[in-house]
Amino acid sequence: MKIQGTPYRSIYLDADSNLVKVIDQTLLPFEFKTLVLSNLDDAARAISDMIVRGAPLIGATAAWGMALAMGQGVDDSDVKVAYEQLLATRPTAVNLRWALDDMHALLMKTPEENREEVARKRAQEICDEDVEINAAIGRHGLELLRKIWKERKEAGATQLNILTHCNAGWLATVDWGTALSPIYMAFEEGIPVHVWVDETRPRNQGANLTAWELGEHGVPYHLIADNVGGHLMQHGMVDLCIVGTDRTSSQGDVANKIGTYLKALAAFDNQIPFYVAAPSPSIDWSLRDGIAEIPIEERSPEEVTRLRGKTESGAIESIQIGPTGAAAANFGFDVTPARLVTAIITERGVCEATEEGLSKLFGDKK
Amino acid sequence: MKIQGTPYRSIYLDADSNLVKVIDQTLLPFEFKTLVLSNLDDAARAISDMIVRGAPLIGATAAWGMALAMGQGVDDSDVKVAYEQLLATRPTAVNLRWALDDMHALLMKTPEENREEVARKRAQEICDEDVEINAAIGRHGLELLRKIWKERKEAGATQLNILTHCNAGWLATVDWGTALSPIYMAFEEGIPVHVWVDETRPRNQGANLTAWELGEHGVPYHLIADNVGGHLMQHGMVDLCIVGTDRTSSQGDVANKIGTYLKALAAFDNQIPFYVAAPSPSIDWSLRDGIAEIPIEERSPEEVTRLRGKTESGAIESIQIGPTGAAAANFGFDVTPARLVTAIITERGVCEATEEGLSKLFGDKK
Repeated sequence: MKIQGTPYRSIYLDADSNLVKVIDQTLLPFEFKTLVLSNLDDAARAISDMIVRGAPLIGATAAWGMALAMGQGVDDSDVKVAYEQLLATRPTAVNLRWALDDMHALLMKTPEENREEVARKRAQEICDEDVEINAAIGRHGLELLRKIWKERKEAGATQLNILTHCNAGWLATVDWGTALSPIYMAFEEGIPVHVWVDETRPRNQGANLTAWELGEHGVPYHLIADNVGGHLMQHGMVDLCIVGTDRTSSQGDVANKIGTYLKALAAFDNQIPFYVAAPSPSIDWSLRDGIAEIPIEERSPEEVTRLRGKTESGAIESIQIGPTGAAAANFGFDVTPARLVTAIITERGVCEATEEGLSKLFGDKK
Repeated sequence: MKIQGTPYRSIYLDADSNLVKVIDQTLLPFEFKTLVLSNLDDAARAISDMIVRGAPLIGATAAWGMALAMGQGVDDSDVKVAYEQLLATRPTAVNLRWALDDMHALLMKTPEENREEVARKRAQEICDEDVEINAAIGRHGLELLRKIWKERKEAGATQLNILTHCNAGWLATVDWGTALSPIYMAFEEGIPVHVWVDETRPRNQGANLTAWELGEHGVPYHLIADNVGGHLMQHGMVDLCIVGTDRTSSQGDVANKIGTYLKALAAFDNQIPFYVAAPSPSIDWSLRDGIAEIPIEERSPEEVTRLRGKTESGAIESIQIGPTGAAAANFGFDVTPARLVTAIITERGVCEATEEGLSKLFGDKK
């Protein structure tokens, strides 16, 4: 997608320099800066320091990390060391392991002298495949948006109001994003989309990333506190919701950023469509009842009681909110039960949030 | 309630100095400081600068403002000037007008030479009446808490988990608070209460005030992001919710701080009792359908994009969150429909959130 008119991917091979570059997401939304990944350590640090984040982008960066490692040494132990080092960066990320296993298997069957070239080619392919998955989600989602916009327009609406939570945009993937992909496509097609961006406390990915990427691409939005969506839905100010997913159970329960469930409840209560954009790697066929079976990560209380931003003098600082020494609890995700999900948008099409719906599209992967 | 073991009211006549004092709530939770209100201007400034906030406390402060004005001049024009100046401080506050009308009527029928004494006596009475209303809400709510705790204890629970939103504590009233009053009484009685405190973005009254007052009194709590309540309720970590109300319609719809509706939806979805503590002055008998009829105030977008806190160096600063120039929308309240409210706790008892329920208790006021 575009930054001030210039197209970017979140990780890319720079055409002029032949160097791998990423956007430093720790600086957003206050500063836009790209970083060169020159070697294995750079790639590992980019993941562990959250310079890159979002499951698909982490996988893509790990694949490039393996390729960069091959520029430093190509024997079996080099492959193993790179694999181990990259795997340790974010131990729970599903796409990380998938990308590393893929690269590892490929390299072990490739003669040493070809390993660097093969690895670079495969890393680029993994990026392109991610872009293609997200673009396909965008095309399928776009059909839904077109249909809703047609109805709303006929009813006299002047814009299509979409609410999203957290960041499931192009910054979390290589390009397009998942939840935001249909929105970018609708925008490109001239549908007058307007996005309500939940700030997404405690880490504020909505305020820091979603608002930034929409704004840079030119998509109209309003940032809102996470408390606001229910009121907007009660008053006809939301036409549909689209969110991403970290993990989707076989029956269509959706583990996503904490707070997603509350918006799904409000959408259901006000008969507003609630869509989940789910690339197939997010579907965990081993899980059925998401609420009972998906463990929810408890994170540092400091994420609740300290907040990063820009002071009046322009410095980026972290401030304490709440009383000194306040006890705080910080659950990272919640699970939205399938009954509240209108439909799941995948790269193979749109389906019901049921085992039957998902199986029809992905019977081969089940 | 207590601050580090010492009992306080949010506004009080200091026994030693005979001066009217308030807690400067703009400094909380980072600094505890009381301020003397010496004259009419001090009282007006305390309200307009939000040194005091919360409808009942604003009313009490305005009453004291009239009394202090009588120390400066007692003729009819002095009464009128004080009335006008105080009324202009927060034009939409219901209790403000009520307290001022009460004081004005009383003073106009009082001989000038007695006005100061009568006004001081009546201001004190208004404070005491507020405390009595809140204590009565506390006693009625306590019965509900006792009952739920008995059940939970028999089921093996070790604490009673209560979720609240915003600040409906003693800092918003003269003492006890509304939603927090039953919690303080349960705590005093030895019920092992534990409170989940929604931080309540964008103004963070939960983090800044509720967490502070519970902590100072010694009530165990955890501060949480507003996104978390749904997850907690899904997993049996909330036994009941209690919130306050800014305005209650005759059929039991509740206008309260933005985000209340989302918590009510989650409570309903998980069959958890959702109580509203409503002093009778909050009931607006002229309203029926709260969602259709209650206008929702839109406030400054800066409240969303700027946040106050304590920097690493200990200074209180405001930081920007989100991209520079981000569009933001800021709705102050939402309306929870009566169908999601388990019961309303008033100073006259607990009733159904229906016209019939409210009429049974308040037929005389209707």
